[in-house]
Amino acid sequence: MRVVRLFVIGLGAVGRGLMRLLREKRDQYARRLNVRVELTGVADSRGAWIGEDLDPEEVLRVKERHGTVAAAGDERDALEAMEDADFDVLVELTPTDIETGEPGLSHILKAIELGRHVVTANKGPLAVAYDRIMRAAERRDVIIRYEATAGGAMPVFNLVRETLKSVDVLSIEGVLNGTVNYVLTRMETEGLSLDDALADAQSRGIAEADPSMDIEGWDTACKIVILANSILGVRCTIDDVDVTGIEDLTPEAIRIANERGYRIKLIGRADRDGDLLVRPCLVPKSDPIARVRGVMNVVRLETDLAGTIYVSGRGAGPLETASAVMSDILSIAERSPTTR
Amino acid sequence: MRVVRLFVIGLGAVGRGLMRLLREKRDQYARRLNVRVELTGVADSRGAWIGEDLDPEEVLRVKERHGTVAAAGDERDALEAMEDADFDVLVELTPTDIETGEPGLSHILKAIELGRHVVTANKGPLAVAYDRIMRAAERRDVIIRYEATAGGAMPVFNLVRETLKSVDVLSIEGVLNGTVNYVLTRMETEGLSLDDALADAQSRGIAEADPSMDIEGWDTACKIVILANSILGVRCTIDDVDVTGIEDLTPEAIRIANERGYRIKLIGRADRDGDLLVRPCLVPKSDPIARVRGVMNVVRLETDLAGTIYVSGRGAGPLETASAVMSDILSIAERSPTTR
Repeated sequence: MRVVRLFVIGLGAVGRGLMRLLREKRDQYARRLNVRVELTGVADSRGAWIGEDLDPEEVLRVKERHGTVAAAGDERDALEAMEDADFDVLVELTPTDIETGEPGLSHILKAIELGRHVVTANKGPLAVAYDRIMRAAERRDVIIRYEATAGGAMPVFNLVRETLKSVDVLSIEGVLNGTVNYVLTRMETEGLSLDDALADAQSRGIAEADPSMDIEGWDTACKIVILANSILGVRCTIDDVDVTGIEDLTPEAIRIANERGYRIKLIGRADRDGDLLVRPCLVPKSDPIARVRGVMNVVRLETDLAGTIYVSGRGAGPLETASAVMSDILSIAERSPTTR
Repeated sequence: MRVVRLFVIGLGAVGRGLMRLLREKRDQYARRLNVRVELTGVADSRGAWIGEDLDPEEVLRVKERHGTVAAAGDERDALEAMEDADFDVLVELTPTDIETGEPGLSHILKAIELGRHVVTANKGPLAVAYDRIMRAAERRDVIIRYEATAGGAMPVFNLVRETLKSVDVLSIEGVLNGTVNYVLTRMETEGLSLDDALADAQSRGIAEADPSMDIEGWDTACKIVILANSILGVRCTIDDVDVTGIEDLTPEAIRIANERGYRIKLIGRADRDGDLLVRPCLVPKSDPIARVRGVMNVVRLETDLAGTIYVSGRGAGPLETASAVMSDILSIAERSPTTR
């Protein structure tokens, strides 16, 4: 039996989704993949809890009752706790900060320094410091996986890494933000204003209280930066992206586009020359990218040998995102196992 | 540098595509992935050619000039030649036979017996003997990869294996035959009869001279069997599939469906209960599966945690298929390298 021990930082929606997933599917992974996933540390912004084989159910209970795992552990910060814990993979799930990448960036660099692998759903560190993180990881021979950073449950990075090894991807284009796409879909089908469509999305838990990262295009820009670095080999950061959001878009513009055979989509695009942009685009209705509705995401990859490949899936959702994180964890466990 | 030595059986369109790909991209794989791909044997139905590091360019030239590589090698059959050759991976590219799986089945079992990994684009062996092949492979601890068997350049098997490890796929459904989909698209958009649409597909090299495997649904059935075994864990063979083709479909049926908001697609479907079917279905135009046009394929995967995932790509084409074969080869090379 292979064993992989996790240190999880961040117990927001995705972190809690991961705990539920551990609780429900851990035995199955052991049977099906011969991998035992153990939890040896958890941390949130107020403290950390370290133990030999923490019970994810108990972690959820402590977090819910006390608001922090410090209640069962102590007030050590995550960086300090990482030094004391016995783990194989850091799972970094703190909120995205696209200015500094913090606190995720420090957590990730610390894990690498300690010679531990990293799985993250946090776009910030990779959007501001992809190259720095990857160089550090290469020096310490550790694996960094980040499938959940672009499009929740829509597989992209691992798809290219594992199934398109023989080809060159020439460009990447797609709808990468489920909140924006939901808003645009509502504006189009019901003639709602941006504000009304947003309020609807918020009431359904699709948009956050402050949706500006989504609406202004920065979330899509983060994803484009990570895709460009990872798949196209373009070294870039969030500062290199030409970003226009949908904040000024009117229902009239959408209606007129619609009458002329187009849909307006917030498109992220990157090519091998390093042209990176996020922009509301008129997409012909016959284009598969125009056809993705609601919270679904889609990516189109143009390749040299395999033609055009599309992949589409749910862009967000705690369990969907947690499942992408868990696939990365299991993938690392198979590559770099601790056998007991 | 890791080295992987290939023995390639079958020099039809895909085999020749693989030779071209080797010629053009081999140096790039060495640089990018640190894997050197060598060719130490090739065979066709008339003979075999074994050598230390065969030149794919030269293989193409001999094959074109003489119709067989026996002209440079000898008339040994492939099974015998495999015993004499020094190779790591058998690449099985002979034509599909869905009655017996031969000659591919014997080639694959021989390679396993010799302790060699296998990459195949031949649907026959897996459609008639998936379980037998996989058990044999497990006993000898060799890897079997077959991405090209379902949908050419559309990644499915490796997508699930590598990127959806954490989830359970509950059902698989899709358009899996580019020829049929092209014919249906032409019948719909131009009101052609099946025969006229087929003649058009043949004139463009999309349909084979004898298109019955495609039109009668057997090609799709093979793919469903391999998908069901590989992804759903359903042990089945081609005999377990309920198959109806499009041979009796009229332009009128398509027109009437169209007027009522449907497209007719040849759908392959499998679920965890082992229900396997291939059938022309009325698909609502709003369904992403209805929207795939011409030679494109699409697969919809329903999962327990990651929601619905779609993947779409070109279903056929010699270079596209060869690229899927090459991705499998490179993937094996990374997992089980011979280092020199």
